Amino acid sequence: MPDADWDSRITKVEPNHLVTKGYRQEDLIGRVPYTHVVYLLLKGELPSPEHGRMMDAIITASIDHGVTPPSAQAARTVYTGGVPVPTAIAAGIMAVGDAHGGAIEQAMEMLQHYVKMSDEEEKSFEALAPQVIQDLKDQGRRVPGLGHRVHTNDPRTTRLFQLAEELGVAGKHTALFKAIQAEVGKKRELPINVDGAIAAVASDMGFEPRLGKAFFVLGRVAGLTAHVFEEHKDFKRMRKLFKVNVGYNGPEERDLPAEYLE
Amino acid sequence: MPDADWDSRITKVEPNHLVTKGYRQEDLIGRVPYTHVVYLLLKGELPSPEHGRMMDAIITASIDHGVTPPSAQAARTVYTGGVPVPTAIAAGIMAVGDAHGGAIEQAMEMLQHYVKMSDEEEKSFEALAPQVIQDLKDQGRRVPGLGHRVHTNDPRTTRLFQLAEELGVAGKHTALFKAIQAEVGKKRELPINVDGAIAAVASDMGFEPRLGKAFFVLGRVAGLTAHVFEEHKDFKRMRKLFKVNVGYNGPEERDLPAEYLE
Amino acid sequence: MPDADWDSRITKVEPNHLVTKGYRQEDLIGRVPYTHVVYLLLKGELPSPEHGRMMDAIITASIDHGVTPPSAQAARTVYTGGVPVPTAIAAGIMAVGDAHGGAIEQAMEMLQHYVKMSDEEEKSFEALAPQVIQDLKDQGRRVPGLGHRVHTNDPRTTRLFQLAEELGVAGKHTALFKAIQAEVGKKRELPINVDGAIAAVASDMGFEPRLGKAFFVLGRVAGLTAHVFEEHKDFKRMRKLFKVNVGYNGPEERDLPAEYLE
Amino acid sequence: MPDADWDSRITKVEPNHLVTKGYRQEDLIGRVPYTHVVYLLLKGELPSPEHGRMMDAIITASIDHGVTPPSAQAARTVYTGGVPVPTAIAAGIMAVGDAHGGAIEQAMEMLQHYVKMSDEEEKSFEALAPQVIQDLKDQGRRVPGLGHRVHTNDPRTTRLFQLAEELGVAGKHTALFKAIQAEVGKKRELPINVDGAIAAVASDMGFEPRLGKAFFVLGRVAGLTAHVFEEHKDFKRMRKLFKVNVGYNGPEERDLPAEYLE
Repeated sequence: MPDADWDSRITKVEPNHLVTKGYRQEDLIGRVPYTHVVYLLLKGELPSPEHGRMMDAIITASIDHGVTPPSAQAARTVYTGGVPVPTAIAAGIMAVGDAHGGAIEQAMEMLQHYVKMSDEEEKSFEALAPQVIQDLKDQGRRVPGLGHRVHTNDPRTTRLFQLAEELGVAGKHTALFKAIQAEVGKKRELPINVDGAIAAVASDMGFEPRLGKAFFVLGRVAGLTAHVFEEHKDFKRMRKLFKVNVGYNGPEERDLPAEYLE
Repeated sequence: MPDADWDSRITKVEPNHLVTKGYRQEDLIGRVPYTHVVYLLLKGELPSPEHGRMMDAIITASIDHGVTPPSAQAARTVYTGGVPVPTAIAAGIMAVGDAHGGAIEQAMEMLQHYVKMSDEEEKSFEALAPQVIQDLKDQGRRVPGLGHRVHTNDPRTTRLFQLAEELGVAGKHTALFKAIQAEVGKKRELPINVDGAIAAVASDMGFEPRLGKAFFVLGRVAGLTAHVFEEHKDFKRMRKLFKVNVGYNGPEERDLPAEYLE
Repeated sequence: MPDADWDSRITKVEPNHLVTKGYRQEDLIGRVPYTHVVYLLLKGELPSPEHGRMMDAIITASIDHGVTPPSAQAARTVYTGGVPVPTAIAAGIMAVGDAHGGAIEQAMEMLQHYVKMSDEEEKSFEALAPQVIQDLKDQGRRVPGLGHRVHTNDPRTTRLFQLAEELGVAGKHTALFKAIQAEVGKKRELPINVDGAIAAVASDMGFEPRLGKAFFVLGRVAGLTAHVFEEHKDFKRMRKLFKVNVGYNGPEERDLPAEYLE
Repeated sequence: MPDADWDSRITKVEPNHLVTKGYRQEDLIGRVPYTHVVYLLLKGELPSPEHGRMMDAIITASIDHGVTPPSAQAARTVYTGGVPVPTAIAAGIMAVGDAHGGAIEQAMEMLQHYVKMSDEEEKSFEALAPQVIQDLKDQGRRVPGLGHRVHTNDPRTTRLFQLAEELGVAGKHTALFKAIQAEVGKKRELPINVDGAIAAVASDMGFEPRLGKAFFVLGRVAGLTAHVFEEHKDFKRMRKLFKVNVGYNGPEERDLPAEYLE
């Protein structure tokens, strides 16, 4: 459009003609797997077979963690209010924040920053790892992507790293993270969690940190849909989802000041 | 858990052990395509190869429609306020409602209702089609899933129906919808749109109507992520996304009543 | 604007000049109480002193119900994910639906429908009440706005009705609801809950049913803000807000079918 | 509750008895203005008459800015998708972020930090103002709360500052902000916008910065409700709200690579 107000690189919309990142949608549908189309949307090009398979694995790795995380609890809670399915799914996605899924972005920033430093300063990852930990400590932070509330050895991490090796996708960022983990492990054994594994592999695939929470959302939307649908099928609205055993420690009961009384 | 307050059929969460619909997550990751895992989450069983491929096609068919639909506009608009990526994606998903993507659910209800009636009353789809249209008309409604603001011949519909035939997935619901379209077409040519095509094929695959909007969300989340990421990379916050040329036709300017003035 | 694409009746925005429903915002600020400005926004005119005070009471009546309702739980749950304050407040508002706060809209529709019928058919409310209950029963519904999970005698209802009488606001819709409650009470004592009281009084003030959920939102936003702020100040992110004692009753653990294994 | 899992200071919920911050809700309703109850919820005590009136003014000052801000556009856009009123209002609130309403929080942080420094170092505001500007400049930031897209002299600011003087609420934070504005004004005349004015006055009232966006939300929810209701009454779903004149500058149209073709 010569007189367009601004341009978008995503989809050209014309009557009976939809072109996404250059490809006609009718060509993509049923021929290119959905997760490869996601890669296309975020990178602008279709993935190599290895990147395509890794992308699918990354998204599948976030698919669900039962009723334990805030996102699943929020989606189910909102649905009990009697709202449409997308509203409830959206509430679950809104819980994805700095403390829930956010470690992907934070770990991507860390890994990409220090891999670059390693390249520039010709420092080995083993030599760099103590500095990474010290730098974070100086900022009052822990290593993002290490440790988990439930798992001491996250099966999703093991699988993602194994697949990344098999496919030849694993590179510097994965190696650096393992060096950092080893350094931390001298004091206390902590697993790389699924957020950390996604961060490492996605960085090796050339993705930007700002997409970190999006990877999580792209997979978890499936689990959230299942939670909302189960709530729809098996349970009543306004049921008591959780035991809420909350006390009151506010001010003692009191009368209104005289000026408010008629 | 013998003393659980309630049960969920989705994921068993134990330390270092995540089992979704019976399958260990480390087995699913990188082996079963993501969209087949979505099918597993919603149906409880892995799809046949034909259903798996059709499921992937359905989700890919909803991936994006440029900056024209409310969902994309909402996601980009919210992002310009300076919020996290998931909040903006969620705002886009919230726009999926009865008028935007909702035709899937409505068409699934229609098709499943009248296919059942056809079975019970041994009536052909051709004989039933005029009744469907009349029933909707009596309720003041149009046929859901017919017609599009932009397309007279939606390329996604053509592709989905072609694939459903190829894979042997197309069944009674698709046949009924084509009969309804033919009947409507006697007066006015109207295409089955992508919502209608998804409704027909998903009904032939045995999905329930209440999942209609969810199919749309599961695919569109990818396009919304791309819109938000493009907004992040290429544009400034609080930019004027759209030309807003809105007048004021409220009450004329006036003074407050005297009692409010000191 | 002579060439405006469409018109809005709400606010005229010009440089250094903001006119809402005819009044300059600098005149409204600090002179007209906020809840009276809300009335102005929804009705187009400032309220009489009686309507103004009643409007304030209606909004205050929805202010908070502790950590028991889905809205408060959703807001707190989403905030623990590590998101901005408005995202968490919004999640709480999204839980306001047909089953949570929705009785206001449903009761307004009921009351306005049958008060009109009473006028047209010159039927007394006592004579009409059994018909209302029967009509709802025929639709498989209960009387909206009756009964509460916690209260047998909702103190907010008592206060709203008392004030409506004092101010001369109480009219036909309140009278009809009391007649319906009395009729129901012949079988089972059920209180008019706060949703029902708001529905009756707001109908007597001439508001439309579609605003029902909005009244609830306009007050509850204050409580939700307090919950989110308390979560911010007194608690950690990703804390376990609620005891989640959920079992798994999905398929037994199983191996992937052979075709997925390499 | 002796065995409560945790305590909340907000509302004690017992059958037929609701106590918020020590006051029975039936005492508050219709006696204490809603905005004073908001103050109670956020501070724990009812306001003095001066603080009560100022609080009402602050909330009213955020009530609406027509269809120009992202929040109003998001709420209306989401509503056109055919969703419940609260979902649409929530989408508007989600647009309140670092770039839209966020200046309140940022300005509160700035003012409270430097007022404290002024107290500790016994430095006058005039002496401190250049340092504030320099510090922000060193961080690559501008003064939050200065300047507006539409107004060179925001009528809401003028009114809020006038009222704060009249009521004796204006204090050190307001004085510091005026000193900063004067210093900036030596180079370029920039108005304190409504966000800045709220930040100054709310800081003088002893509120914490983290509540900044909440003040905006507490008022704007009224305008958003009006926008959604107007959309409901006067317009059709899926209407084209805004002229979307967006071009496509992605990859040229192309065929799928051979390996994807059957």
